[in-house]
Amino acid sequence: MYDLSAVRRDFPILSRKVNGKPLVYLDNGASAQKPKVVIDTITRAYAEDYANVHRGLHTLSTISTERYEAVRGTVARFLNAASEDEIVFTSGTTEGINLVAYGWAMPRMEPGDEIVLSVMEHHANIVPWHFLRERQGVVLKWVDVDAAGNLDPQAVLDAIGPKTRLVAVTHMSNVLGTVVDVAAIARGARQHGVPVLVDGSQAAVHMPVDVQAIGADFYAITGHKLYGPSGSGAIHIRKDRMTQMRPFIGGGDMIREVHKDGVLYNDPPMKFEAGTPGIVEQIGLGAALDYLMGLGMTRIAEHERDVASYAMDRLSGLNWVQVQGRAKQRGAIFSFTLDGPAHAHDISTVLDKKGIAVRAGQHCAGPLMDRLGLTATCRASFGLYNTFEEVDALIDGLELCHDLLA
Amino acid sequence: MYDLSAVRRDFPILSRKVNGKPLVYLDNGASAQKPKVVIDTITRAYAEDYANVHRGLHTLSTISTERYEAVRGTVARFLNAASEDEIVFTSGTTEGINLVAYGWAMPRMEPGDEIVLSVMEHHANIVPWHFLRERQGVVLKWVDVDAAGNLDPQAVLDAIGPKTRLVAVTHMSNVLGTVVDVAAIARGARQHGVPVLVDGSQAAVHMPVDVQAIGADFYAITGHKLYGPSGSGAIHIRKDRMTQMRPFIGGGDMIREVHKDGVLYNDPPMKFEAGTPGIVEQIGLGAALDYLMGLGMTRIAEHERDVASYAMDRLSGLNWVQVQGRAKQRGAIFSFTLDGPAHAHDISTVLDKKGIAVRAGQHCAGPLMDRLGLTATCRASFGLYNTFEEVDALIDGLELCHDLLA
Repeated sequence: MYDLSAVRRDFPILSRKVNGKPLVYLDNGASAQKPKVVIDTITRAYAEDYANVHRGLHTLSTISTERYEAVRGTVARFLNAASEDEIVFTSGTTEGINLVAYGWAMPRMEPGDEIVLSVMEHHANIVPWHFLRERQGVVLKWVDVDAAGNLDPQAVLDAIGPKTRLVAVTHMSNVLGTVVDVAAIARGARQHGVPVLVDGSQAAVHMPVDVQAIGADFYAITGHKLYGPSGSGAIHIRKDRMTQMRPFIGGGDMIREVHKDGVLYNDPPMKFEAGTPGIVEQIGLGAALDYLMGLGMTRIAEHERDVASYAMDRLSGLNWVQVQGRAKQRGAIFSFTLDGPAHAHDISTVLDKKGIAVRAGQHCAGPLMDRLGLTATCRASFGLYNTFEEVDALIDGLELCHDLLA
Repeated sequence: MYDLSAVRRDFPILSRKVNGKPLVYLDNGASAQKPKVVIDTITRAYAEDYANVHRGLHTLSTISTERYEAVRGTVARFLNAASEDEIVFTSGTTEGINLVAYGWAMPRMEPGDEIVLSVMEHHANIVPWHFLRERQGVVLKWVDVDAAGNLDPQAVLDAIGPKTRLVAVTHMSNVLGTVVDVAAIARGARQHGVPVLVDGSQAAVHMPVDVQAIGADFYAITGHKLYGPSGSGAIHIRKDRMTQMRPFIGGGDMIREVHKDGVLYNDPPMKFEAGTPGIVEQIGLGAALDYLMGLGMTRIAEHERDVASYAMDRLSGLNWVQVQGRAKQRGAIFSFTLDGPAHAHDISTVLDKKGIAVRAGQHCAGPLMDRLGLTATCRASFGLYNTFEEVDALIDGLELCHDLLA
């Protein structure tokens, strides 16, 4: 049983008002709000037990290191990784994908080598590959989605050729909500000997993720979307890929010895974590993931499916609203435009007057916007605390927009 | 007037006990404790006003963006930068120096090109340059310190040859406390047309820093050592150098447009900040820097000078303690060994029983330890809240170590 009222009480910000109205926070795709347990964990870490990690032998450093390192196991449990040694801490998916681009792809890709990616990738899963295109002649091969926003796994596999060195694909579109069958892609790509990177930034928030069942080589997640602190995150990297990677960021912690004439690097995963890390951020992420696992990702997914289903019904009832993407498998993310001259920015501004937070713009997905022939959409993205009443509030707000702006 | 009792009350953790004794926190070189105003700022940011930045038009996103972007001006004021557009947010000095290594040095350095650095650099200011040595044949030229730990600016300038492309040097040694005359180095290097990177990770904590007066090209600071959150930081980059740099981390925010066949990057400093940043971390850093500027960096430096002077007197009174480094200009950082078999780790453990937190090890400074002929030292590093009584507690603790371990 999912006790939505109790869940909502866990999030202090949900009791605030915006422009005199109760906050209706539907910008979870950009970043999620934080439960009290995360905020309290951060406070306690700083006010009671703070010190740097891995560096000291004194009590506070030991406490801090134990709490920080325990999160590696928490992330491994959350993703059902085979081992916590396959978890590298990052500041989020962006850093995680850049780690793969710089640490794995850059030293081994030759001019003409290909990376296959879908047109609905987030910029975090595009720009690092554009770097390789600009800097070393790598070719980006784009796989289209169909009119409903489905990505056919077979189309991705068909794009793999003899020069393909990587498939980089999202598990859930941050614009269309499309859920991609990344397990089928990983299975097929493996037969070609091509590794697969999955951007799990959205998917891990909305559904149970099992990286062993998926079988990809790299799976990146973002802490601040997972109800954890900004600046937290992780990437799951299969052990065999880790051994192929050179270090990315250089500094303390990722080395074993440094001399004037050479360096001896630490073993993975430490090899890929340099300098003082986001100590309290990762400890906070641990609290967030424990909170999510306490509620149960399956139950969260069920709740969101009910809310999303209701939202789709109600949005479909407004014949002047165009919902972008109606994939068969989709999460609680809705991008839409209104018929007529109403710009997404204006819609967002009107909704904000009613306390409703949505996002307007291109959602860090330039190629998808080009594909859709749009310059901007509004996006309402739901989270574990959103309600049916908030769907109604959104619909009321859109009706107001239609009256004011159409 | 520096009201030390009031200052100490600002730091919640200082009232805790460790092993039944009042905490004597002398591991500030590794990371500093946080004043209540920083912790409260973080709590408020999450509990009341949280949203992602730069991305939304709704109220919470606007509040969050304004608070976040205001910190750029705070950092600029703290460092007396000419413009806040010269401030790039980072997760700390490690990321800052890697940004320079990947964004500025990597695309322009040829095999045989030289980087001049001192033997007392921190690994954060060594390993990124070792990457360039390993990966593209750059030569590292090391400048020695004298027996007291002084770094002669002229020796650094004398190391500059026709193939020197960069000088990378610390402003204050994290092991010896040596303050380096980086202004003299920057002035001289400029005459050779060689840019200078300064690792300000320690110096900015202990003394007023004026990047315009110093005149270096790059000046990196670390938030968590500046009494701010883990995962926060910044680097000052002169405008003319920024325009020479290619982007480092790729993702959202650092782009203007992304298409299938190309990318248009954002203007600096945004060009160098990818993905959702450490939103709350940087807001917390702003609170920390405001706190420091409220106390006054000059007064903090005076207080620390008094404490350091007392500590040096008392340590010098123990003829079985060897203080490493007695440079003419030095900060409140003391590395030492004890005569006899007492290992630094054992000393640290005994001191911890008395509630005293010091660090033991090589302090992320391998080449310096090689130079000193040591494998480890103990380090007591003082901060703005440390007292004369805490110096006495350290001395008492060391006498106990001498009794137990000698």
